This record gives sequence, C-alpha cells and structure tokens, in this order.
Amino acid sequence: MSQFQFDLHHTDAHSRARRSTFHTPHGPVEMPAFMPVGTQGTVKGLTIDMVRETKAQMVLSNTYHLALRPTEKVVKELGGLHGFMRWAGPILTDSGGFQLFSLAQMTKITEQAAVFRSHIDGSLLELSPERAIQIQEDLGSDVAMVLDHVIALPAEDVAIRAACERTIRWAGRCQAAAKRPEQAQFAIVQGGLNPKMRVWCAEELAKLDFPGYAVGGLSVGETPAEMYAVLDEVCPAMPVNKPRYLMGVGTPQDLLNAVRRGIDLFDCVLPTRNGRNGMAFTDNGPLKLKNLKHQLDTQPVEAGCPCPCCQHSRGYVRHLFMADEMLGPMLLSAHNLTYYQRLLTGAREAIEQDRFVQYYDQKLAGWKKSTEAAA
Amino acid sequence: MSQFQFDLHHTDAHSRARRSTFHTPHGPVEMPAFMPVGTQGTVKGLTIDMVRETKAQMVLSNTYHLALRPTEKVVKELGGLHGFMRWAGPILTDSGGFQLFSLAQMTKITEQAAVFRSHIDGSLLELSPERAIQIQEDLGSDVAMVLDHVIALPAEDVAIRAACERTIRWAGRCQAAAKRPEQAQFAIVQGGLNPKMRVWCAEELAKLDFPGYAVGGLSVGETPAEMYAVLDEVCPAMPVNKPRYLMGVGTPQDLLNAVRRGIDLFDCVLPTRNGRNGMAFTDNGPLKLKNLKHQLDTQPVEAGCPCPCCQHSRGYVRHLFMADEMLGPMLLSAHNLTYYQRLLTGAREAIEQDRFVQYYDQKLAGWKKSTEAAA
Ligand SMILES: [Zn+2]
Ligand SMILES: [Zn+2]
Repeated sequence: MSQFQFDLHHTDAHSRARRSTFHTPHGPVEMPAFMPVGTQGTVKGLTIDMVRETKAQMVLSNTYHLALRPTEKVVKELGGLHGFMRWAGPILTDSGGFQLFSLAQMTKITEQAAVFRSHIDGSLLELSPERAIQIQEDLGSDVAMVLDHVIALPAEDVAIRAACERTIRWAGRCQAAAKRPEQAQFAIVQGGLNPKMRVWCAEELAKLDFPGYAVGGLSVGETPAEMYAVLDEVCPAMPVNKPRYLMGVGTPQDLLNAVRRGIDLFDCVLPTRNGRNGMAFTDNGPLKLKNLKHQLDTQPVEAGCPCPCCQHSRGYVRHLFMADEMLGPMLLSAHNLTYYQRLLTGAREAIEQDRFVQYYDQKLAGWKKSTEAAA
Repeated sequence: MSQFQFDLHHTDAHSRARRSTFHTPHGPVEMPAFMPVGTQGTVKGLTIDMVRETKAQMVLSNTYHLALRPTEKVVKELGGLHGFMRWAGPILTDSGGFQLFSLAQMTKITEQAAVFRSHIDGSLLELSPERAIQIQEDLGSDVAMVLDHVIALPAEDVAIRAACERTIRWAGRCQAAAKRPEQAQFAIVQGGLNPKMRVWCAEELAKLDFPGYAVGGLSVGETPAEMYAVLDEVCPAMPVNKPRYLMGVGTPQDLLNAVRRGIDLFDCVLPTRNGRNGMAFTDNGPLKLKNLKHQLDTQPVEAGCPCPCCQHSRGYVRHLFMADEMLGPMLLSAHNLTYYQRLLTGAREAIEQDRFVQYYDQKLAGWKKSTEAAA
C-alpha cells in the first residue's frame, strides 16, 4: 500500500471548499493547508522550533537553490532535508522549473533539458526532468514536484500550448525516473490564463494518475480576478480524489478565494517577506509597523495571537525596525506565518460546518477595515 | 528593608572566587553571573523566549542607545524596559559613560556634564550624572550604573587621577539624584592600569556605601595579563559584602580569570557578536563555522549542549552562513550565550565544592586544544 493517501472528508455545502487529510511518511497534513517556504533549508528568520510553534504542518524547500548550494549531495550526507533542517514533518520540494524562469539566466531549453547559468556563480548547469527527480530524491522530500516548462505571460496560445505539451511529456519522464516509494510526485498544470488550455492540461495529466496535482504559472503578474477565473475552470478538471496545490500563492484573500474554488494546499513567501519589511497581516487588514502612529501603541500586533511577536507591544516592534534590529523581521515573520496557519485552521473548521462562505465574508469584511495600504 | 540584598554564601578555598546571590525586585541572580547584552532593548538575534532558554538570569541594556532611540520616555510609556522587552527578570542599565567615550562625538566635558553629538542624527545632547539617573529611572532597570568619566588609555597619571576624582564626585551626585527605591545604583571604579589609583578609587567609592560596585574602563585594548593584574589589586579593595561587576568583559578565559580574582558579575557583546560572525565558543576552543572542513560535519557545534543550534549539524550551520541566512547568526548567538551560561553554572558549582581552580585548569586545557584561531 502506498505511504501516501488522500482522504476527502467533506466538501462545503455552499462552495467547492474541501476538508481533507493527506497522509505522508512523515505524518498527516490537514487540508486546506499552508506551507511556509524554507528556500535554502531554513524558513527565513525562524528557528525550526519557531516554525513548529506557528502550527505549520508541512514546509516547502527549493530544489534550485539547494542544488546550487550546498548541493543535494551535501544535504543527503547531512541526513536529507529532514535531518538537515530538523523538521520531523512532511516536506515538499519544488522542481526548480519556476526558478529557471525567474532567477537563473536561461541559456537554452530543449526537449531534453534546460541549460542555464547559476545566479550564484554563473556556472553553466543542466536541469532535465530526470535530474530534477534525482536531486529531489537526494534531498529526501516527501513530495517532489515534476519539472515543468514555465513561460512568461502574456504569451501566444501556440507558445502556451507548446509549453503545456512539454510539461506533460516531462511529467511522464519524471514519473518514469522515480526510484523512491517514500516520495510522491505531484504534476503541475500549466496553461497560462487560457481556461481551455488549463482544462486540457489538467485532463491529460490526470491520465498519468499522479498522487497529487498542482496549478503552476500563476501569481506572476496577472490580476487576482484573472487568477480566480483560471481556478474556476481548472479545479473541476482536476481529480477529485487527489490533493490540489496552488503554487506560490498568495495573500490571505487569495488563499480563501482559492480554497473556495477547491484548492487544498498553498505555499508563499509573502508572510516572511512582508514580515521582514515591517508589514503584519491581521484580521483587520495589514499593519505597517514602521508608521509613526505605532510609536506609543501598547497593543500587540493582533490581540489573542499566540505568536512570540504578540507578547510585545506594537511600539516595541516599531522600535526594532527603526533600530534595524534582527528581532523585528524575526517577530513579524513569526506573526505572519502564525496568521496564515490560524486563517487555514479557521477555514478547515468552517468547511466542516458548511459555513465557509460566511467565514470568507467575515474575513474579507475585516481586511477591508484597514486604514493602511497593503505592501 | 532594601529590596536589594547580597548574600555571600562561600568563598573558594583555593582562590578568591565567590559564590553569592544578589536579590532584586525582579528576582535573584545566582553569582558569578553573566548578563547578555540587549543594547537597544533586544539581545541581537534572539527572541526573549530564546534569551530565557539560554538560562540568563539578568540582562543588560544601554542607556545611551535607548535615550537616543526610541527615547526613555517612549520606553516608559511602553511599560519600562521590563514591559518593553518582556523580560520578567532583573535588568541592569549602564549609564552611557562608556558610549560617550566610544561612540559619540564628544564635544565638551565639564564638571557639570558631558556634551556630545548623537552618533545617529548628529544632534547636540548633554549627559549629566543627574540626567543619567533620570533616564535610567524612566527605563525602570533594577540596577542603574552611575555616570563615570572614561578616558582613553594610555594616559598620564594626572589625567587618570582627575578622571577618578570626577567619577567619585559624579557618583555622589548620582546617589543624591535617586528617586526610586526599586532601583539600586552601582558605582564604577576607574583608574586605568594604575593599581594604586584603582585601589584609592575603590576605597573612596566604598565610603559612599553603594549596593554594588563595578570595575570600569577595562577591556579597552590592554592585554589580558594587564587586566588580570588590575583585578588582583582592585578586588581586595572593593567591599566584600557587595556584588562586584566587571564591565564589558570578556572571553571565556577572561571570565574565569576574573571570577578567580573575586568578580561576581559580567556582561559582554562577544558571544552575540562572534556568533553573528560565524564563531562558536566550545569546551574545545573556538570553532569557525564558515571553514570548509565543517561542510559535511554531522556533529553538533557542541555535543550535549541544549541550545537550539546544537540540534543541528555543523554542516547545516555552515550552510546557513554561506547562504547568508539570518538563522546562522541567530543559532550561533544562542549557542554562545548558552555556552557562557553553562560556563558560569559550572563555575558556581565548582566554587561551592572548593574546586574552582581545577575547574579553571580543566576549561583552559580544553580551550587550548582548538586548532582554529580565535576570532
Ligand atoms: Zn502574532
Ligand atoms: Zn549549543
């Protein structure tokens, strides 16, 4: 029997929101779930104990970054990603496809592989579907993402179609390259903002019977409405009995909109990146802690939040940012990750009770109260 | 009855090392003790929970920095330093005398006050003994340091003598300015490297019957042997029934040498500063984690250390530094502070059992094993 199992417990009576559990060799993930991003084998600004305290269940790490430094061989020697980071729960690694597109200096992409220059030292490297899987097997993640062909948007339909077709062929090659039964592969649905292409890509990948499916190539500059429109079309075309993962998304509002449309899993750098920049997510919308108005504010960032930041006053957190102290970014990153976990815990409870739409409306109303513009 | 009490439990049979307890309104400090430095109201790289986990009993914060930013009035509004930092234990604040000397652009020093330019915005400010106490009362520390007159070494005896005399007069003015019985003032013995001047200064200050005494103006470029020679002379001249605090010192070796000579209390930025630079203190001497030889090392920085760093491999910590991740400085700062606390916990036990000299010899032998040069 597979070490991976997806149990769909309930679908909300008034939306497509799903309450499920995804079982992995390193424990279950209650879904919908949010994964903090540990790009280089560390969630920026948090000790691994602090990551646990946010109630994160599963973390993401990046194949592209780790393969370049310290290399997957070093990670493997140091106990694989679980031993390296000291994270006992499930880990998902991306394939590097998105970073080739966003970070590396791509030099050539052929049917065989992508050839690119490292953004660290400029060395020439090759990433094929087989190599992407081999690296992820060395990293030892529970879930490996297939290598996909990401293209810049907007693009012509013919280019989007070609990238989809290659993504599908590469998914098959990734599947064929798998050697570790302790690792599940998730395929990635591409197709830009073209709903028909998305549906076709999802249906073709469904035939390959992956243990999970992701929606890739979104949150790359399109409007939220455009993204939600894609999800409206693509989610129903994805297998109902497999987890659905929306890659690299997004704001709290994006998360609830995607859950509402049937997405089960998320990752995003926003909570930590915005935290480092002095921005806190709260139920009353974003707070910019550097603002002078917080100077004498004895309130916590968010009343009732159990995170290490919210034992302090806003005035203290502001001081840390003004004084350029590491603790400012550390505390707001912890707060924002805790906020995301609490948001999804609330979503899971709401789905179980068929009141997800009320939950969504209530959160949205709170966020609109903010008098500070979002970062 | 005073809220401050010093209980001298035992003096080592073979050295001047003392085992004592200093009681404050925010709890007892078992001595000899080391205070981590929270210059701007935060121990760099650690949440306040992490500071507690190092087993620190008392922390230090800097009057000069906090008076400039966010100002003592803001700290007071936000609950005083205890509320600001969320540190429930005792807090000591320095007076700003050393920072005037080391950081600020001093423009004029008279009998009345020091006039200086802020190192942050260049504004012109004045610090008198009375003002130094008023600021520290607003900050709400348990122990306030008197404002002392620090001078650059080497200096002529006449200049050292004049600075001592002013330091003594200013100590009297600080004492007269005190308004909070919940705050104890410690006087500061100056006198450069001149043993006679140090003894004279200590004896004069002893007449003022402060609840504690510090040795200031050391660790400013002299050799360890010169510093130890001063301590050999000055400690016996300091009141036996009061805590003795050696300001801004030092390496693990410095600490044990000072304890051996009768010092009870320390603070130093070395554990956090060296931690941020990739250097770890261990019983086998310093480790430079950036060295290539640690790349595949699965050992912790120090076996048996309970700190958050030592659940990871040296290879992981090295990776964090090579990848410029915040977690590297965070973990090594926590390790080094834990190391200092364990060092002094061991010293306290050794003193109680009249085996401090063996403890000292054993630690020194371990430190000399290191194959890596100290930072
Ligand atoms: Zn919080
Ligand atoms: Zn340690």
